[in-house]
Amino acid sequence: MASQIQQIYQTNLSLLTDLYQLTMANGYFINGMQEREAVFHLYFRKNPFKGNYAIACGLDFVIDFISSFHFDVDSIQYLASLKGGDGKALFSESFLNYLQRLEFSCDVDAIVEGTLVFPNEPLVRIRGPLIQCQLLETTLLTLINFSTLVATKSSRIVHAAKGDPVLEFGLRRAQGPDGGLSASRAAFIGGCEATSNVLAGQLFDIPVKGTHAHSWVMSFDTELESFEAYAKAMPNNCVFLVDTFDTYEGVKKAIVLGKALKERGYRMHGIRLDSGDLAELSIQARQLLDEAGFTEAQIVASNDLDEYRIKQLKSEGAKITVWGVGTRLSTCYDQPALGGVYKLAALENAEGKMDFKVKLSEQAIKTSNPGIQQVRRFFTKDGEGNLIPESDVIYHEGFDCSEKYSSNSTSYEDLLKPIFRKGKLVYSKPSIHTHRTFCLNQVDQFSFIFEKPYEVSLETKLAELKKKLIEKYSC
Amino acid sequence: MASQIQQIYQTNLSLLTDLYQLTMANGYFINGMQEREAVFHLYFRKNPFKGNYAIACGLDFVIDFISSFHFDVDSIQYLASLKGGDGKALFSESFLNYLQRLEFSCDVDAIVEGTLVFPNEPLVRIRGPLIQCQLLETTLLTLINFSTLVATKSSRIVHAAKGDPVLEFGLRRAQGPDGGLSASRAAFIGGCEATSNVLAGQLFDIPVKGTHAHSWVMSFDTELESFEAYAKAMPNNCVFLVDTFDTYEGVKKAIVLGKALKERGYRMHGIRLDSGDLAELSIQARQLLDEAGFTEAQIVASNDLDEYRIKQLKSEGAKITVWGVGTRLSTCYDQPALGGVYKLAALENAEGKMDFKVKLSEQAIKTSNPGIQQVRRFFTKDGEGNLIPESDVIYHEGFDCSEKYSSNSTSYEDLLKPIFRKGKLVYSKPSIHTHRTFCLNQVDQFSFIFEKPYEVSLETKLAELKKKLIEKYSC
Repeated sequence: MASQIQQIYQTNLSLLTDLYQLTMANGYFINGMQEREAVFHLYFRKNPFKGNYAIACGLDFVIDFISSFHFDVDSIQYLASLKGGDGKALFSESFLNYLQRLEFSCDVDAIVEGTLVFPNEPLVRIRGPLIQCQLLETTLLTLINFSTLVATKSSRIVHAAKGDPVLEFGLRRAQGPDGGLSASRAAFIGGCEATSNVLAGQLFDIPVKGTHAHSWVMSFDTELESFEAYAKAMPNNCVFLVDTFDTYEGVKKAIVLGKALKERGYRMHGIRLDSGDLAELSIQARQLLDEAGFTEAQIVASNDLDEYRIKQLKSEGAKITVWGVGTRLSTCYDQPALGGVYKLAALENAEGKMDFKVKLSEQAIKTSNPGIQQVRRFFTKDGEGNLIPESDVIYHEGFDCSEKYSSNSTSYEDLLKPIFRKGKLVYSKPSIHTHRTFCLNQVDQFSFIFEKPYEVSLETKLAELKKKLIEKYSC
Repeated sequence: MASQIQQIYQTNLSLLTDLYQLTMANGYFINGMQEREAVFHLYFRKNPFKGNYAIACGLDFVIDFISSFHFDVDSIQYLASLKGGDGKALFSESFLNYLQRLEFSCDVDAIVEGTLVFPNEPLVRIRGPLIQCQLLETTLLTLINFSTLVATKSSRIVHAAKGDPVLEFGLRRAQGPDGGLSASRAAFIGGCEATSNVLAGQLFDIPVKGTHAHSWVMSFDTELESFEAYAKAMPNNCVFLVDTFDTYEGVKKAIVLGKALKERGYRMHGIRLDSGDLAELSIQARQLLDEAGFTEAQIVASNDLDEYRIKQLKSEGAKITVWGVGTRLSTCYDQPALGGVYKLAALENAEGKMDFKVKLSEQAIKTSNPGIQQVRRFFTKDGEGNLIPESDVIYHEGFDCSEKYSSNSTSYEDLLKPIFRKGKLVYSKPSIHTHRTFCLNQVDQFSFIFEKPYEVSLETKLAELKKKLIEKYSC
């Protein structure tokens, strides 16, 4: 194997959680509540980046994590070593024994990767023993929050590039090795064409791209020598970085090498700009390249790019044909966290009946939805017979939803799909390429989303249930 | 072992790099330059968070990474599978054979974890065969950039808390599992007292903290029942979360349980506030607790806290005694990336002599420093004989530095310490607790840093060398 990092998600990450999940688990156990059936939903409350949508991402990591969920001897020993305020063991012996024997047995439903999703829609629904639902919370949030955030950022950047390829270059400033790996994967699903991250390429089957840096040019006495040496070594991978000294002169030298490569039966793929006025420099470079007959040569640009910068450069007439995006994508610089939450929505009571639950908040947006939720997406048809999403309805699985909302729509789809049933995986993971194509098709289908928000509502009976519960808990 | 994630940094991450490092490596090899001696420095150009300093962090990860640096069979096979623009192999067979046999043989010097550092100071200096220096670039940046950023953020937050304990709670919104783990480690070194992240606790020997969440309260019919059940299960770990319904009423119920715990011979540690007007609520809570005789009970607060929010709450008279900090620390929300760079500063030429190098830029701040650099920190003594840092000087190791700058100072220290010599580790990693204590002492020593910037200069002869090189490369 290339690296054990590839096993991160396949292995036992059961301790990658907040301590309070374990203290609560201990509490449920001591109070005999551990096996009560519970329903939790993972969702976010606000679209990231002040936009109108998000891209669901990270489910495959969740599947790997859950598939190997268990507490091994080392984990149990570590937990046994933790002390409470009185210096005595924090966890009871009987609880730790229970934990060591615990086998995952929940039902998991989720919205598949690459789907456009909206605030308050459950991305993941977990139904099963209270203790298991609780123990999954933090890890599920970590895995879904970041991937969903990056896939959304990537989708926005790819949209701004209007069909030009976008490459993800962010590893060096990512938040740790796996911050970089997760970001490369999610950026690809969101629509990027390739990554510079070689390990991400190997682990996730993503195309990798790269040529040379400034340090290459600086390792030679002159820029021309450096280009010659590069063309000698990598004639089939020539994109010359032309801004080490003077960009205009750099382009001229690239053209010299372009001609030499042609004589050797190779092709200069293009040039890269990494500083200065990218609009102006790309216009000048395009003119020089075209005059020299290199009309097919790409102009790759990088340097703190994101969707806003790309739009601006395009409006300035930039002749950039490939966009290299790094830090601002891989760290989601303008909003580095998605505020996804995981809330209890139903719990079996002592009599064995399901009680529905809401978490109240002074801010109405923060009050959670009760029930066992499903998301139904309704479609209409356009003139050419294409399905256009019309609205989403969050409904309680027991309640009828279709009749009420289908009067204007021609069809619907329930977005939460069965992933685990009684702890067994019942879903087959598509390839990352399928995820990416699905995502790009979704964005096409939702082409209006960049102009106007999309309607998501609570089904009437669910809204009534929520109102009743709010009244009940508020008094 | 608990989890293979703990092996991330000890294992072969050699492909966790940008593809262009490998294409350049191939280029150096084909051009016969691979063994030329080079010197690279890793540094940042601007203090993060608009502050006056940063905390060096991540070196132990770098040591683990370098200690196991090699290209295994799987990596080589993957690289062999990559194609250039003509559909033929990207890498030459001879290069891949060379890569597979490569053994790390560089000298590495670095500033140890927990040290206060400033723009342009090399945090890591690598000296050795050009190809090896180049291959390390991206991974070193990933490991140092993020840890340094988080340690700095943590240090700023801990300073704002003025001696109150700060707990790190950020895992659920961290950038991937390892984003969370790296953040927990760096936050501890920067001064946090504990983390909620259990795996970070186990892997890095950090204290872990946690009690219960809103979902605990919601799992019972009433808040009081939930507190009773928690106190029954975890009598030695009671911090009651009091804001699920009405904070004021919640505090009163906590007091009921506090009394009950006392009768059982236990102690209520405190309460936690997670929403609303934290200043006002903490004042009310303190009054209720004090009146009931719980003057020792902690008031823990959380909810989007950072150094600015903590300062504001303190200025509003908040009676918070423990600060739980999550997203804004673990993702460094207001600046999620440190722009650290890795630049060539010297390279052996074809005649076997060292040429010094600068990377030019239209922005003067971005022009790199040449030479084989060391950082000397000069100290003066205060009235009580304590050493006070006076200024740092970046100098070339061959040039004399001490005489010129020591006239006002009583002593000095060179900050770059030998870590590897000819590829062998010559440094013994201190414990994380030593790092943390060292960091806290450093911040004490630099107590003025929160009020005024610190002076860092280039030694005169190094500044002259830089000027000459800029003139040479600019024409």
